[in-house]
Amino acid sequence: MPAIPRYYQAKARLLDLLGDLPGNTPFPPERELSDVLGMSRTTIRKAMNELVLEGRLIRGTGRQGTTVAPPKQVHRLSLDVLVQDLATREQAAVRITRDVLTVESVLVRGDEPIGVRSTCLCASRFPGFAERYDDTPLRRFLSTTYRVRFGDLRAWCTTTLATPRLARLLGVRPATPVLSVSWLDLVERSWVVLRGDRAHLTMAQVQGSAQFHAS
Amino acid sequence: MPAIPRYYQAKARLLDLLGDLPGNTPFPPERELSDVLGMSRTTIRKAMNELVLEGRLIRGTGRQGTTVAPPKQVHRLSLDVLVQDLATREQAAVRITRDVLTVESVLVRGDEPIGVRSTCLCASRFPGFAERYDDTPLRRFLSTTYRVRFGDLRAWCTTTLATPRLARLLGVRPATPVLSVSWLDLVERSWVVLRGDRAHLTMAQVQGSAQFHAS
Repeated sequence: MPAIPRYYQAKARLLDLLGDLPGNTPFPPERELSDVLGMSRTTIRKAMNELVLEGRLIRGTGRQGTTVAPPKQVHRLSLDVLVQDLATREQAAVRITRDVLTVESVLVRGDEPIGVRSTCLCASRFPGFAERYDDTPLRRFLSTTYRVRFGDLRAWCTTTLATPRLARLLGVRPATPVLSVSWLDLVERSWVVLRGDRAHLTMAQVQGSAQFHAS
Repeated sequence: MPAIPRYYQAKARLLDLLGDLPGNTPFPPERELSDVLGMSRTTIRKAMNELVLEGRLIRGTGRQGTTVAPPKQVHRLSLDVLVQDLATREQAAVRITRDVLTVESVLVRGDEPIGVRSTCLCASRFPGFAERYDDTPLRRFLSTTYRVRFGDLRAWCTTTLATPRLARLLGVRPATPVLSVSWLDLVERSWVVLRGDRAHLTMAQVQGSAQFHAS
């Protein structure tokens, strides 16, 4: 059986330590941990980096040290809620570039950004969209205002690294792993990027048929 | 508008370079890229690390340098295929620890590992499992051999960092972001960890009802 990498041993020790500390407590600095655990600073740094990426530690800026992340609340979102644009969100921004109309909004829970939702539409098909859009859920708006009928939908889910722009919107570091849910039908090309440490995509499969569950 | 981080500018330049190079080509070393692009080695390293994590570059071991990853093939797997244990896989390993029976298999496509599937069952409920299990899809085996009826299912999907053990099974570096699909019903607690750069979870939503599609 191959040996457990040294940094992972360090991570296990740090997780033990984390379990005992309440949220927002300052976490011991790298140097101190290196002395106490008898492991190199490089090893400790690697372990801490992973804990930051996983949202267990929060790295301060400048002279602020690292602190323990408060117990994380994970929000459950169903594909149906994402597609129907029913998640709580900030006001949507509308941009038009040539013939592509983009509607983007930040999904929030408890004043914290947990995702970004983007939809691309064919601009010429929706004249006056920017002036008329009243910030109701997008699908409902499109069907009542433009009589759009949405067909069947193909969706897929994967994991990507947050671009600097998305990271800024989500309040995480660039290259943090995020969950990406995309879908495509005859009308729209959309995707939602979710903070992996704050949101899950939920699904329910009903006996016999397999069906989504709107939680 | 905030400035684009320097390492991300480097990444964009490296991606341009990558676009011109066929798979398995040696990629220029860090030092050379630093000279040519006029950026620090730290910046280049950060950009390259992200490209390795995204599966665009392959880091060699020892004296082997970094090479361009061959065009990646992304495999689509539906929740139904994962739950029903219908994906191509290596022979399953069965372990029993106290009253927990664990069945684990590596999902493969084209001789490459793309995921790991684990199911935990209550051992006392399935006497003689280890001797009787014949490596057919797990759900089918349980329903024919033990007359199990599976109820409705709740599933959720998130992103996590590969543990060293999973990383070894998947042939990636520890802490590579992976997609984690979990489900729970009255009989089993299961999860599949998928390589984010090799596999997508697919879903289909049929007009009116929302339904999974077994691709």
